[in-house]
Amino acid sequence: MAPASSPHQAPPAISALLAERLPGHSLPAGLYTRDDVFAADMDVFFYRHWIAVGLECEVPEPGDAHVVELGKSSVILLRDDDNIVRVYHNVCRHRGSRLLGPGSSIVSRLVCPYHQWTYELTGELMHAPHMGQDFDRSCRSLKPVNFVSVGGLIYVCLSDDPPADVSRLIETMEPRLAPYDIRNAKVAHSCDIVERGNWKLTIENNRECYHCLGNHPELCVSFIDLDFGYDPATLSPDDRERAAAHHARFARATADWEAAGYPSAAVLPRVDGDTNFRTQRLLMDGVGESQSPDTRAACARLLGTIDDKLLGDVHLWGHNTWNHFMGDHAVVATVIPLGPDETLVRTKWLVHKDAVEGVDYDLDRLTSVWTATTRQDAALVEHSHAGISDPAYEPGPYSTFAEAELDSFAAWYVRQLQVHGY
Amino acid sequence: MAPASSPHQAPPAISALLAERLPGHSLPAGLYTRDDVFAADMDVFFYRHWIAVGLECEVPEPGDAHVVELGKSSVILLRDDDNIVRVYHNVCRHRGSRLLGPGSSIVSRLVCPYHQWTYELTGELMHAPHMGQDFDRSCRSLKPVNFVSVGGLIYVCLSDDPPADVSRLIETMEPRLAPYDIRNAKVAHSCDIVERGNWKLTIENNRECYHCLGNHPELCVSFIDLDFGYDPATLSPDDRERAAAHHARFARATADWEAAGYPSAAVLPRVDGDTNFRTQRLLMDGVGESQSPDTRAACARLLGTIDDKLLGDVHLWGHNTWNHFMGDHAVVATVIPLGPDETLVRTKWLVHKDAVEGVDYDLDRLTSVWTATTRQDAALVEHSHAGISDPAYEPGPYSTFAEAELDSFAAWYVRQLQVHGY
Amino acid sequence: MAPASSPHQAPPAISALLAERLPGHSLPAGLYTRDDVFAADMDVFFYRHWIAVGLECEVPEPGDAHVVELGKSSVILLRDDDNIVRVYHNVCRHRGSRLLGPGSSIVSRLVCPYHQWTYELTGELMHAPHMGQDFDRSCRSLKPVNFVSVGGLIYVCLSDDPPADVSRLIETMEPRLAPYDIRNAKVAHSCDIVERGNWKLTIENNRECYHCLGNHPELCVSFIDLDFGYDPATLSPDDRERAAAHHARFARATADWEAAGYPSAAVLPRVDGDTNFRTQRLLMDGVGESQSPDTRAACARLLGTIDDKLLGDVHLWGHNTWNHFMGDHAVVATVIPLGPDETLVRTKWLVHKDAVEGVDYDLDRLTSVWTATTRQDAALVEHSHAGISDPAYEPGPYSTFAEAELDSFAAWYVRQLQVHGY
Repeated sequence: MAPASSPHQAPPAISALLAERLPGHSLPAGLYTRDDVFAADMDVFFYRHWIAVGLECEVPEPGDAHVVELGKSSVILLRDDDNIVRVYHNVCRHRGSRLLGPGSSIVSRLVCPYHQWTYELTGELMHAPHMGQDFDRSCRSLKPVNFVSVGGLIYVCLSDDPPADVSRLIETMEPRLAPYDIRNAKVAHSCDIVERGNWKLTIENNRECYHCLGNHPELCVSFIDLDFGYDPATLSPDDRERAAAHHARFARATADWEAAGYPSAAVLPRVDGDTNFRTQRLLMDGVGESQSPDTRAACARLLGTIDDKLLGDVHLWGHNTWNHFMGDHAVVATVIPLGPDETLVRTKWLVHKDAVEGVDYDLDRLTSVWTATTRQDAALVEHSHAGISDPAYEPGPYSTFAEAELDSFAAWYVRQLQVHGY
Repeated sequence: MAPASSPHQAPPAISALLAERLPGHSLPAGLYTRDDVFAADMDVFFYRHWIAVGLECEVPEPGDAHVVELGKSSVILLRDDDNIVRVYHNVCRHRGSRLLGPGSSIVSRLVCPYHQWTYELTGELMHAPHMGQDFDRSCRSLKPVNFVSVGGLIYVCLSDDPPADVSRLIETMEPRLAPYDIRNAKVAHSCDIVERGNWKLTIENNRECYHCLGNHPELCVSFIDLDFGYDPATLSPDDRERAAAHHARFARATADWEAAGYPSAAVLPRVDGDTNFRTQRLLMDGVGESQSPDTRAACARLLGTIDDKLLGDVHLWGHNTWNHFMGDHAVVATVIPLGPDETLVRTKWLVHKDAVEGVDYDLDRLTSVWTATTRQDAALVEHSHAGISDPAYEPGPYSTFAEAELDSFAAWYVRQLQVHGY
Repeated sequence: MAPASSPHQAPPAISALLAERLPGHSLPAGLYTRDDVFAADMDVFFYRHWIAVGLECEVPEPGDAHVVELGKSSVILLRDDDNIVRVYHNVCRHRGSRLLGPGSSIVSRLVCPYHQWTYELTGELMHAPHMGQDFDRSCRSLKPVNFVSVGGLIYVCLSDDPPADVSRLIETMEPRLAPYDIRNAKVAHSCDIVERGNWKLTIENNRECYHCLGNHPELCVSFIDLDFGYDPATLSPDDRERAAAHHARFARATADWEAAGYPSAAVLPRVDGDTNFRTQRLLMDGVGESQSPDTRAACARLLGTIDDKLLGDVHLWGHNTWNHFMGDHAVVATVIPLGPDETLVRTKWLVHKDAVEGVDYDLDRLTSVWTATTRQDAALVEHSHAGISDPAYEPGPYSTFAEAELDSFAAWYVRQLQVHGY
């Protein structure tokens, strides 16, 4: 059905939708649903920004290649013969054919299946049949993609003018991730789920735990939703006492971690920054070792050089990713929009590269909490998107206690579109 | 393929298509096929007009809720604790999530699954966790939807400015439907079919019986197509005699019904009215009791207070509905466009609420005629839509005898779009 | 993801894309991917041009009808009672319903299933019930479609102003096809495949054999890719000698064929012509009889009046068709775009009408080479389209040796759009 007011007039410009946004409220519907806004989002947030796409440890050996599809783009992550990670556009310089299909493969050269144009792993075109003597191969190398490794997490920027402030992300996260040695971890499991909603609803869903208690029984065993904000007035005297005890314990743990050389304090997103992230080392509930069904470590072999199971959960949010680095394993998720109302969430579970399935970890036990949580969130995002598409929707108020991060994300989102001329 | 004339020019405005329409002819192709016309149709005919969506008897008890999806809108029909029927937009006032999924459920409160915002059945927001002391719940009630009950048939208007002339529909139909007590009937069966054609082709198909003889063998056992117009010159002398006999019998039956207190005469649509409907009490063929395979009653328990199986077929057309109320059962259909070339037809078969399946009625016998007819019509609508989308299509002439109702519908359709500024 | 340069500006006009095309290079991405270009392509190349759609021998007997769907158009090929082939738009002149479904049927009249309007096989409306005395049937004949038969191959033009230079196609091909008597052949097998790419990628793929060696092991048994261009500098001395031997043999064969009354020399497309085609009689490899798995005839009964298995492969390209006429059988393919990124390729295998399956030919043996080749090409086209849709794609250089026909096709394509006002 059509919106109430003059639906046969031209829809407002994106800039008008952005101007319409009320602080403290969810976004106007069109920003979640319109095709032109989706194109703008793709341009700004997935083309001009740094986005998390993969892991160094997905190409552990020279000749390993891994293709990631990002909307209409496709990039090849590979490790060359000198052990250097490289990222290329998956587009032959002849007539544009894809060089490799999605997923992993092992290559000695990159040979286009169409006409056998053949590229070195360094990207140089070494052979192009029937192109004649005058053909200049040197200007037909594979196009490289800008990328950085943030402690082993690969972020790419598809544009030629990547935001410089990714340095803050790197400087913040390298020391936090170093002990986990994610560069040399192993992907124990990977799972794709397509959420039937806009990517911003996926991100909003991830940035609050207001919905956890009612929806995530498995996650709530280890997750402490108090850390994500609450209205103190709604707590019973007993709960208030418990909350105070938790906050005191959390402050002590943070101080102890920092003292032991593990940076832990919260680093917050900057609304006026280009690269949006938040990190903090959090306590887990129960015995506090892992986001597992019983909060005990799900992998006996700890990550990297870690020998303490109680280093908590290093939590990292980006605008298309969330991550939890625990002593025994890590969970790394990336978000790739497929359309205004369709979003791919790719979740990977990482363990130490020498951890052995069936010996050091049971795959079901390792993956069950976030598998369940991801499915529950997909349903919530679908119901949200359906409601927001309804002409009866109007932006509602965020809880200042439990949804402050959403307000901050929305403000950053609006500002970035404006900065890029929308 | 593209249209013949200058296909690389901008397509004509909707207003030009409307102006192009020739009286006595089917509509220009674009009015059936274009995306912008579909959006205009949704705005005018499914947002600003009264549309049939459900039945009081779908929520028979306090706490019964029934969700109907109408394009991007979704409405909750429910009966509150004071036995009052209410209709709400199925959109949480927080971040817009759907409150209930499609179909029926039983509720004591409406609790949003996302963050447990909790509404009374009267629509008031009674609980919203973590929103703080200053939060004003009173301005966050569920949004009500305008609705009327026409003898138990629920019509909604999604806009805030519903057409006033629905009163004529109510005044006409309440006395006609009273004896059938549709408010307290029972839905014995419901069936959704998606027709691969524009909604107006679905409605045109329903408003003539010119196609019945060649396509609806089951329906033609009870339906008398003479009542829907024919060219007298094409009848054989024998057929002409039979037609005259039928018209005399029909006139007598109408007079008898009226004398017995059953309003029966035709009430015609007004081309300049907003709310488009037609009703008339019709004879059925054979023994004349029901649109069943043998024209005998398909349900032994008659509807409401009726004790005469020969009260004919009270036939009611709206712009998104058709209905047949017979002594033993009623057939109620609603039409919900899903896209320019996709239309949902939802058919329900009603019987007395105390009628027992297997005792008073056999479900197959009750539903077989309209199940077959609906499938046959779906195929006709699909073939029509395909042909109308062909650049070789040009509007063809309606039969003045057998398709006069289509001409009247088309004129009303064009006028309504124009009145609403298209 | 969005293109690099100012993606939030309006996309360039089609004319700007056309002007942007670099000679010797593949087309700008938008010409393969954009919706508006697809509409323009449909208008110019599938509505205003002659397109290959079927065969006289698909309607061998009076009353045979065969429906071909061409985007939103649908045409009926039929043979009337006087043995004359006719082509009509498959649209009833009443309310536009399709008269016949896709595929073959046998008819004595064309009766619309909706309201039984009944047309003679000559197209005249002979009966329209209930239309009244004043109704003029004579202006409601079925709309004929312009068509020509090129040696039994039916080309239609959906517009009223078909290009006149189809005469050159007819004059060229009639004498070449006459001995094969395609008018009286038999369709032994037909196969539809939907390629997930733009139709021009399908055509480009067909117009070069640069990709054959790496992709078509079955076809390369009989196909001689030397005839499609190569860089002589890349040949080894041995290969160069073999190439020279082939060219000499080919020149002799052409001279011999011509002397025996079989026109064989290449006829090239005219860049400034409307109707784009190329034909030449080619040698086949091995024993040279057929594009079969072992190059021997796959059908014992030769086509038409042919008694020599070594007449080579009469190869005919149009802008939506490719064909191979060999002594024992012919392969005829038509290309129908379904969307910017979806193209139907319909392949038919023809044999002598009296050839008997299981006696004169084995269907698997007859069809295996082109079935495999078509599947391989579909994969290549899909990978091409995906890469061309990637913002990192830029038009690449055609091989002047092996892809000259693509450059010629691209130039013709651009010119035709410009001539038609794009």
